[in-house]
Amino acid sequence: MTIIITAFESSPDKGQGLARDVRVRWALEEVGQPYDVRLVSFKAMKEPAHLALNPFGQIPTYEEGNLALFESGAIVLHIAERYAGLLPSDAAARARAIAWMFASVGTVEPPILERQVAKLLEGDRSWTSQRLSLIDERIRTRLGELSTRLGDADWLDGAFSAGDLMMVHVLLRLRPSGILEEYSSLSAYVARAEARPPYQRAFAAQLAVFNSTSKD
Amino acid sequence: MTIIITAFESSPDKGQGLARDVRVRWALEEVGQPYDVRLVSFKAMKEPAHLALNPFGQIPTYEEGNLALFESGAIVLHIAERYAGLLPSDAAARARAIAWMFASVGTVEPPILERQVAKLLEGDRSWTSQRLSLIDERIRTRLGELSTRLGDADWLDGAFSAGDLMMVHVLLRLRPSGILEEYSSLSAYVARAEARPPYQRAFAAQLAVFNSTSKD
Repeated sequence: MTIIITAFESSPDKGQGLARDVRVRWALEEVGQPYDVRLVSFKAMKEPAHLALNPFGQIPTYEEGNLALFESGAIVLHIAERYAGLLPSDAAARARAIAWMFASVGTVEPPILERQVAKLLEGDRSWTSQRLSLIDERIRTRLGELSTRLGDADWLDGAFSAGDLMMVHVLLRLRPSGILEEYSSLSAYVARAEARPPYQRAFAAQLAVFNSTSKD
Repeated sequence: MTIIITAFESSPDKGQGLARDVRVRWALEEVGQPYDVRLVSFKAMKEPAHLALNPFGQIPTYEEGNLALFESGAIVLHIAERYAGLLPSDAAARARAIAWMFASVGTVEPPILERQVAKLLEGDRSWTSQRLSLIDERIRTRLGELSTRLGDADWLDGAFSAGDLMMVHVLLRLRPSGILEEYSSLSAYVARAEARPPYQRAFAAQLAVFNSTSKD
């Protein structure tokens, strides 16, 4: 059965690869599964056909036969459970990798999202420059904790896993801020992940969409 | 093997049950597993012994023999995978229940967290009252979408699952704001979950901690 995912028709980050479809593309590349992409406009994302796939009108979604899923973390976990390569076989190590998946979206991403919301939705407000420094301190708290745990290891818990995949993509969203570069071990961690051929293929695939649609 | 979880020694919400240990207590009650609780002070949460369990210095954590986990979503998923009662046996329905778990912490909780952060960490700032109305609109967008998807069903996707458990507890965090009550179907959804005896036992257990420590 063909796997079909959705992605932005028009890349808000101009092909930097920060949208969440990259997590799913990357996971599929890691496990060697081909997929098709259906591009969705901002308008179509809030219409009934897409809301049936994702009640919150977001991308990515995942369709495979009768199965329809939403939420990048859930989709990556589904792929990791179905195909080898993204979760350890030892039960305890597998549970810990899933803990890192939840930590990426539940603990590390919220202040990063708050930064994006401040710039995108409150960029014209008088308070935003002052607030950004408060938010950046909250982000630094999380990055400091993450950096301490990572230490000088290559990955968060043994071999590269779906937990690293999710965490790295959450951290990538910080790149435009320059904050990530304050943490050399985390920068190196992200660079190590970006050097993986599956990541490079995923990145190139999303960039190709931007390049083809931006010429119109 | 005894299951040991951690919870706040001193309840920040005065026993309202809004801390994330309630999710884990509730899951364990749903599957009928006993557990012990180790209470942790705010100071001890940031010390090495606790950071070894949770690198971000948060509660809850979960220990069972050699397995140590953190992140409420990951712990609830581990419990749901290990014991019957919180995930459907059909593979597609199981994947969809997990999607709701990720949606609860990744999509619905962020604006709710942003509201708590605004009140707790920026409560004395000049901009906070104006910002709260912006945040509340973002929360209403999510609640509207969730309410539309729920429709007149009892639970998000068939029988009660770990997805409902996580979503209901995220929504409960809104109760002090009064916003939840604007959505009658979501209020009824939360009330239906609160009426479950396992939830009531979990709530009573966290309240007992508050009552015993608040007398000191």
